Amino acid sequence: MTMIVQKYGGTSIADVDKIKRAARRVCAARRADCDVVVVVSAVGKATDRLIEMAEEVCDAPPRRELDMLLATGEQVSIALMAMALQSDGCEAVSYTGGQIAIRTDTAFSSARIRSIDVQRIRRDCEAGRVVIVAGFQGVTEEGEITTLGRGGSDITAVALAAVLDADACELYTDVAGVFTCDPRIVPNARRLDRISYEEMFEMASTGSGIIHPRAVLFGMKYGVPIHIRHSQQEGEGTYVVQETPAMEDILISGVALKPEIGRVTLSIVPHKPGVVAAVFSAIAEADILVDDIIQNEITRDTATISFTVEHADLADVKPIVESLCAKVGGELTIDVGLAKVSAVGVGMKSHAGVAAKMFQALAEANINIANITTSEIKISVIIDKADGEAAALAIHNAFGLDRSGACRE
Amino acid sequence: MTMIVQKYGGTSIADVDKIKRAARRVCAARRADCDVVVVVSAVGKATDRLIEMAEEVCDAPPRRELDMLLATGEQVSIALMAMALQSDGCEAVSYTGGQIAIRTDTAFSSARIRSIDVQRIRRDCEAGRVVIVAGFQGVTEEGEITTLGRGGSDITAVALAAVLDADACELYTDVAGVFTCDPRIVPNARRLDRISYEEMFEMASTGSGIIHPRAVLFGMKYGVPIHIRHSQQEGEGTYVVQETPAMEDILISGVALKPEIGRVTLSIVPHKPGVVAAVFSAIAEADILVDDIIQNEITRDTATISFTVEHADLADVKPIVESLCAKVGGELTIDVGLAKVSAVGVGMKSHAGVAAKMFQALAEANINIANITTSEIKISVIIDKADGEAAALAIHNAFGLDRSGACRE
Repeated sequence: MTMIVQKYGGTSIADVDKIKRAARRVCAARRADCDVVVVVSAVGKATDRLIEMAEEVCDAPPRRELDMLLATGEQVSIALMAMALQSDGCEAVSYTGGQIAIRTDTAFSSARIRSIDVQRIRRDCEAGRVVIVAGFQGVTEEGEITTLGRGGSDITAVALAAVLDADACELYTDVAGVFTCDPRIVPNARRLDRISYEEMFEMASTGSGIIHPRAVLFGMKYGVPIHIRHSQQEGEGTYVVQETPAMEDILISGVALKPEIGRVTLSIVPHKPGVVAAVFSAIAEADILVDDIIQNEITRDTATISFTVEHADLADVKPIVESLCAKVGGELTIDVGLAKVSAVGVGMKSHAGVAAKMFQALAEANINIANITTSEIKISVIIDKADGEAAALAIHNAFGLDRSGACRE
Repeated sequence: MTMIVQKYGGTSIADVDKIKRAARRVCAARRADCDVVVVVSAVGKATDRLIEMAEEVCDAPPRRELDMLLATGEQVSIALMAMALQSDGCEAVSYTGGQIAIRTDTAFSSARIRSIDVQRIRRDCEAGRVVIVAGFQGVTEEGEITTLGRGGSDITAVALAAVLDADACELYTDVAGVFTCDPRIVPNARRLDRISYEEMFEMASTGSGIIHPRAVLFGMKYGVPIHIRHSQQEGEGTYVVQETPAMEDILISGVALKPEIGRVTLSIVPHKPGVVAAVFSAIAEADILVDDIIQNEITRDTATISFTVEHADLADVKPIVESLCAKVGGELTIDVGLAKVSAVGVGMKSHAGVAAKMFQALAEANINIANITTSEIKISVIIDKADGEAAALAIHNAFGLDRSGACRE
């Protein structure tokens, strides 16, 4: 029997009508004789409201208790979804992350899944029931409730699809798929029919909020067929698939913008073994995700290390680097008001000149580049926040992304 | 070390300010070197809002999913309370019912506690932490989330006090204790310093919403010292204690009003063994609590059985008794718009004339009595809903309950 995992994000179940509409879609799949496992996020802006409550009670909510709080958002959704399905005559049963033993490590607020017990899910599917699982949450060995971080429901869905060896993992959202750039920034952006896991990962990591980068990695690792679709519209979305040779003909698949990043620069750090490790160990211990790291050797003994983080993480990062600076010596600069624009495409691997073309486009738009970082299939530039949208548009136009297949060399 | 269980109801933690105030009270107890276990209900009207959501999604929410939904209310509260305490510098840890293994039977929406694992709580208390437990909820052997029914947090608190052998179980609410009658109905009602478990049970069962009757029974069974207090005011409340001989001198301790009850009457039922059992088995299977049962034999072969239920349960009861009537024969009458007024006092056990005095007071107030039921320490009358408050006032006055000790014979 075909097994489908469907994930509905917060905007797809933002109110009672949308929950009922999502339930009808689930029922249709079940009636087409598929086993269906549904993963849901918190309803609409429920998570934001819970965070607001926590911040009213306490300036820096302890992460264990924050996870205890936030996990309720998805628990509300699974219950409502199960009710909507049963009301449509579709047998359904809801489970929290703990109830189906989605075991994670103990990194509260950004936990990683270690294992999932599928026995209960399989038993329910065999009995003809739709299984509804709370996304975003898990439990540690000791039964502590953890959450996987923002966008964690994507990870839950792809992980479930992997362990259940599902035939498809459909991620329902409020856009029709993956676009060459955010259509709010570039109005003539085009929906991609297919994108490789690698490209999707880079797009997701560099600002396309459509799917969580860890979910893409999970999907790539286990070969999960991911389909990103609109929850309120019919029609195909974007398939995330293994890279094919034909994809390399396309230089750039998309442009992503991260509009709010902060940059931390440690100058004149004693350039000796262990210092860099000390910096990033301390940051990792605080469970802060570092975006890009740039190190330039300046003299034989000193160096400058820069790294970027989400703007929201700057407050957490600051005391850590300050105390490190005091310990190892060095000057600290923190810059806000920056953005990152990235061009992503597997074509870069085999085609020269992509970087040059991109920098040329930015220069013509009179945009100053502060930092550059690259990977095998991605080029990112750090620029002024004010230039972000113009930069994305300039790159999108330079590579002709609005025209299907136009950017073949 | 002294061990205190404190329970804060929804009105006591209705907003952020009240949560912080409750947290300060908890801290004070902890700093007085007590082990403190805190039980919290859902914040303010959270449970009502969740029920509304469920009813928007589905006409008759399945109870398993309703419990899944409602349990989130208390989970939100424990997290916020833990944050408030830690923000006050008081180490604290929150647990769901499942995490400390509050095991219940499988009667969703009205589950009964079977056991509680106190190991984790004791370990935290020994480490100097305040333990915060979600009231109202538990889990079955299979890990299904259950709720204990309205007022279930009282039961959680008293049960925890019992298994922990606590020195006190303080129930914080929005009134200053137990009154001779609801002060909104009888303005000169008086706060009782002490009340026996038996009286408290009858008061609670007959309409005083101040504490759940099952919580009182639990307290009585295990001798838990219960103290009902105001959460926003200092000063003593009412102690619920073992009956003492001196209490018997007081004829009536209080008057309770249930303003909304429904009565189901089955007439001309074939009066043979098993019929009554069949009626109440069917109702019990649906987990509906029957209030009073009144049976009058009319002829040798037929009888009339009446029973009262909460007004809200009538919709669930109706189809059950209709199908029973069709099966065993008989006529069905359902009355709404009724109220029940009860006089409660251990003095009744040893003093004659209490019932007569009560009926006389009602007659003088021109109030018609539809049904009468009694227990050893309680007399209840079913009357028109419109007469409810007048009846409570008349009885309160007749027994001079506004004057301390005035109703000694």
